[in-house]
Amino acid sequence: MKIIVAEKAGFCFGVKRAIKLAQDLASKRVVYTLGPLIHNPQEVERLKKQGIRSVSNLKRVKPCPARGGKSTLLIRSHGIGPEKIREAKRKGLRIIDATCPYVKKAQRLAKSLKKGGYRVVIVGEARHPEVLGIKAATGGRVLVLEDSRQAVRFPRTRKIGVVAQTTQSQENFREVAARLLDKCEELKAHNTICDSTLARQEAAEKLASQVDLMIVIGGYNSANTRRLAEIGRKKGVETHHLEEARELDPRWLRGKGEIGITAGASTPDWIIKEVINRIKEAKEVEIDGRKD
Amino acid sequence: MKIIVAEKAGFCFGVKRAIKLAQDLASKRVVYTLGPLIHNPQEVERLKKQGIRSVSNLKRVKPCPARGGKSTLLIRSHGIGPEKIREAKRKGLRIIDATCPYVKKAQRLAKSLKKGGYRVVIVGEARHPEVLGIKAATGGRVLVLEDSRQAVRFPRTRKIGVVAQTTQSQENFREVAARLLDKCEELKAHNTICDSTLARQEAAEKLASQVDLMIVIGGYNSANTRRLAEIGRKKGVETHHLEEARELDPRWLRGKGEIGITAGASTPDWIIKEVINRIKEAKEVEIDGRKD
Repeated sequence: MKIIVAEKAGFCFGVKRAIKLAQDLASKRVVYTLGPLIHNPQEVERLKKQGIRSVSNLKRVKPCPARGGKSTLLIRSHGIGPEKIREAKRKGLRIIDATCPYVKKAQRLAKSLKKGGYRVVIVGEARHPEVLGIKAATGGRVLVLEDSRQAVRFPRTRKIGVVAQTTQSQENFREVAARLLDKCEELKAHNTICDSTLARQEAAEKLASQVDLMIVIGGYNSANTRRLAEIGRKKGVETHHLEEARELDPRWLRGKGEIGITAGASTPDWIIKEVINRIKEAKEVEIDGRKD
Repeated sequence: MKIIVAEKAGFCFGVKRAIKLAQDLASKRVVYTLGPLIHNPQEVERLKKQGIRSVSNLKRVKPCPARGGKSTLLIRSHGIGPEKIREAKRKGLRIIDATCPYVKKAQRLAKSLKKGGYRVVIVGEARHPEVLGIKAATGGRVLVLEDSRQAVRFPRTRKIGVVAQTTQSQENFREVAARLLDKCEELKAHNTICDSTLARQEAAEKLASQVDLMIVIGGYNSANTRRLAEIGRKKGVETHHLEEARELDPRWLRGKGEIGITAGASTPDWIIKEVINRIKEAKEVEIDGRKD
C-alpha cells in the first residue's frame, strides 16, 4: 500500500493568516468571531481553548473584563457584510479584519461592477457565508447562481457583471458565465477563484487519476473541501470526505494499492497527520490478519 | 411538395441601408466602393449597371468627369479601416459611409476595450473584411480567434476584451469567450452579433428541423450565409448553399416532401424568387414524368 498526499493540500494563505491573527490577539484578550473563523470545526474547537469564541449573533458578545469593557471582534476569513460591521461598531467593539484578501478582492470587484451599472451575479453557493458577505458588500440586488442550469433561466439584461465565490471550480464558473453571455449585450467577468483553490483542485484531479481510493479531509461546511471530493467522484475514483481520523472505515482500504490524500484549505496539518496515521494503523492491523 | 421560406431570411437592415445609400448617390454620379458593397456578387453586378463600381485598390478610383474631378467613395457595409479612410481623404475623395451601424458599433467597442487596457480578441474569420476593419479600427495588436480550439492555446493575460464579428454564431462566440475565461483574471465581452444574424440563425434552425431539404441562398463570400448552411448541416438535413437559381440541381428535390428556403442578409429578394420559381418548375417537369 502506498499513501500519496496531493501536491497542494491543506491550509491556504488566507486561513493561515486568519489563524495567526487570531492567536496573536488571543494571547492578550478574549476574541470573538461572528460565525466560525474558518470552516473546520476541530480547528475552531482548538482555537476556542485559546480564547477565540465563535458566536452566531453579535448580541452574544460580552464586554471584556479588562480594556474598559471593549471586546474584540475578529472578522472571519469568509468576510461579513458592512451592516454587521456597522452593528459591531455601534456596540463599541474593537474590529480586526481577518477576511481573506482574495475574498476582500471579490467583495471590492462585485461592488465596483454594481457601481458600473452591471447586474451583479455571484457564481457560488447561495447560503455560504462568503457569498452572503460579497452580496452584502455589494449592496442592493445581487443574484447568486449555483450552476449553468440556473443561468439558463436568467432574464435578458443589458449588462451583466460576474464574480465567483473564491472556492468555486473553474469549470462551473466558466459554464455559468458562458450561459450568461446569451443573456446580455455586455458581460464583465472577474475570475475571483483564488489560486490556492485552483492549485488544490488541479492537484486533486491529478492525484485522483493515479490512485484507487481518495480520502478528502476537511470540514463538512467547507465549500472548497466538498469541491475536492466532487473532483474525485467525477474522476470515477472511490472517494470519501471525512472531518476526523476516527471516521475512517478500515474496510475502505481493503484491496486498495494506492491511496490518495487531499485536504481543504481550512484543514490543519494535525488532522491530516492523524488520518494518515490511522490509515497506516488500519493496514497494519489487516496485515496482522486480525479483523478490525 | 411544399416550399417553406424561413421566417427571417434575406436582406437585413444594414444591407438595405447600404444599397439605398448607393442607389441614391448613383443617380447623380459614379460611385466607387473599396471591395464589394455587400457580399452578393449578383446584386453587386446589378448595382454596377447603376454606376456603383467596386475596386480592389484606391489607385483604381478615377477622377469624376464632373464635380471638379472629385470622385465619391462609398464605404462598404462591412466597414474599412481608418488608414484606408485617410488614404481616400489624401486622394481628395468624397467619402460616404455605408458601414452597417452594427459593424460600426463593434469597431467602437473594440477600440474602447483596447483603450481600457484589454488584450482585444475578435471572434470571427481572420480574413473577412469586417474583421479586418474592426482590427484596423482598434489599432495595434488584436487577435482573431475562429473557434474555441484556438482559444485553448491563448497565453495567460490579465485582462481580455472580446467582440464578435457581427455574423458569428452565438454558440461559437460563447465557446470561445468561455475558454478565454480560463486565461485571464478579467474578461469583458461585448456580444456584437447583430440581431438580424441571430434571427436568421434561429429561423434557419427551426426550419431545418421541419424539412427534408434545405436550400441556403447567398454569396459564397457571405459569412452569414455560410453560417446558415452550417446550421442546416449540423441539424443533419441535406443542405445546399447556392448563389444563383441556375445552380439548383433538380435531382436534389426527388423524394423530398418539404423544402426549406433561407437566405443570407445580403441576398436580394429577386434571387430568392428565382430559386423558388426554379424549384417549382423542376417539380412540374418531374410531375409531367419527363426527365430533367
